[in-house]
Amino acid sequence: MKNISTETFIEVPFYDLDPMNVVWHGNYVKYLEVARCDLLSKIGYTYDDMKSDGFAYPVATMELKFIKSACFAQKLRVVSTITDYEPALNMKYEIFDANTGEKIFKAKSMQICVDIKTRESLYTAPSRFAEKLEAYA
Amino acid sequence: MKNISTETFIEVPFYDLDPMNVVWHGNYVKYLEVARCDLLSKIGYTYDDMKSDGFAYPVATMELKFIKSACFAQKLRVVSTITDYEPALNMKYEIFDANTGEKIFKAKSMQICVDIKTRESLYTAPSRFAEKLEAYA
Amino acid sequence: MKNISTETFIEVPFYDLDPMNVVWHGNYVKYLEVARCDLLSKIGYTYDDMKSDGFAYPVATMELKFIKSACFAQKLRVVSTITDYEPALNMKYEIFDANTGEKIFKAKSMQICVDIKTRESLYTAPSRFAEKLEAYA
Amino acid sequence: MKNISTETFIEVPFYDLDPMNVVWHGNYVKYLEVARCDLLSKIGYTYDDMKSDGFAYPVATMELKFIKSACFAQKLRVVSTITDYEPALNMKYEIFDANTGEKIFKAKSMQICVDIKTRESLYTAPSRFAEKLEAYA
Repeated sequence: MKNISTETFIEVPFYDLDPMNVVWHGNYVKYLEVARCDLLSKIGYTYDDMKSDGFAYPVATMELKFIKSACFAQKLRVVSTITDYEPALNMKYEIFDANTGEKIFKAKSMQICVDIKTRESLYTAPSRFAEKLEAYA
Repeated sequence: MKNISTETFIEVPFYDLDPMNVVWHGNYVKYLEVARCDLLSKIGYTYDDMKSDGFAYPVATMELKFIKSACFAQKLRVVSTITDYEPALNMKYEIFDANTGEKIFKAKSMQICVDIKTRESLYTAPSRFAEKLEAYA
Repeated sequence: MKNISTETFIEVPFYDLDPMNVVWHGNYVKYLEVARCDLLSKIGYTYDDMKSDGFAYPVATMELKFIKSACFAQKLRVVSTITDYEPALNMKYEIFDANTGEKIFKAKSMQICVDIKTRESLYTAPSRFAEKLEAYA
Repeated sequence: MKNISTETFIEVPFYDLDPMNVVWHGNYVKYLEVARCDLLSKIGYTYDDMKSDGFAYPVATMELKFIKSACFAQKLRVVSTITDYEPALNMKYEIFDANTGEKIFKAKSMQICVDIKTRESLYTAPSRFAEKLEAYA
């Protein structure tokens, strides 16, 4: 499979800061979701498409690595990449300062396709999703 | 209608703090919801009961007044009171330091009963809710 | 005083949604802050400038009016306006669907200037802030 | 080193739910922090103690494993354990349904002690922290 990747820009909002005046660590999970939704939107298969096809993709595992702290109004560039989509949707993420290029954070996530009706885990991607992924790659 | 009121205790978590080392102002809306859900649970008519009866109670208006700032691990006592439930659910809230009794915050909210299927606003409370309210009062 | 206003665009992220599949009401307070910080940035007097001048502007009161619900990936246009800056910083906000122009939400906030060292409330704006406001108007 | 562990009880608030009517995955990071702060408080060495000693403990890595989804008003039991405190503070966490005992989530975190003034990483725990840890164990 070829590279399935995009970049997404985020500006740190004030309400994400903690008493050390940097982004509270749990808020990076939100940035990952924004980047993932952006990539899925560009691929043309959003959470709403999944839902109308009868599937959900709950997150099963995440690994987070905090490298530098981010501060108020900092512009972040998030590079998100789908590394596999079967048997599970595997993604990796890197967050950089959009101006200096300095790496701030990286992460991986694994999501498993679930049939909303039966609640069963599936180990193949919905066909419409697979087609969109191959077309985008 | 007699007084329909309860008190709910909350301890300020670290992740609710902002760079001034006090609770970020928007987080008080969460404390109000915790208190409201606690009161509805004591009355015996939760959001899940509303939903299974076919109703939702979206918030229509809120007024917030910030008096003192709250800090990490501070114990808060939230007094929540239903002041009316028809034509709309009106509530008021006061938040105190649980130890000193000092008042920190107060608020009002108005919620309108909506029929989930028709999306129409109703100006009377669901009968099961009205009964529970009268029984609790 | 002339009009001091700007518009800010926000796309609703997935993590802001509640079980009704619409933006959880408390999250609008975040959108107001994003808009307010954007306006202050355009005026050229940010929270960091306030802090380095020795001032903070804690929110004292807010009034929120929820008109329509907002949903995932909806583009919102927030119009934020400073209506007064003395004796307190008064702002109003209107949120519209960026495509249809439909009004979704409106709000007011009042913030009081506080001297960080003495913790005293001031009823005049810091001079550098007042100059920037007049220049922007 | 002997076991340094505690259990902390959390009730799922409504605002933590997502459109699938379960806890949004990023919110578990908050539950971990509540549990960690509870354990540090029982040990007698809180974030405020760290700060007044001149140290911070930023999170460097986290691993999250989502096993079952949690729902509104569910009572959760979080078991948090310090597995090492030198050269870094390593913790593990397990979240169970407080009633059925079913496992819902598990995680690990690694935090590195930083000297607030010099911003240098330290590979030994502050002596007052080490003493408290040994006394609690």
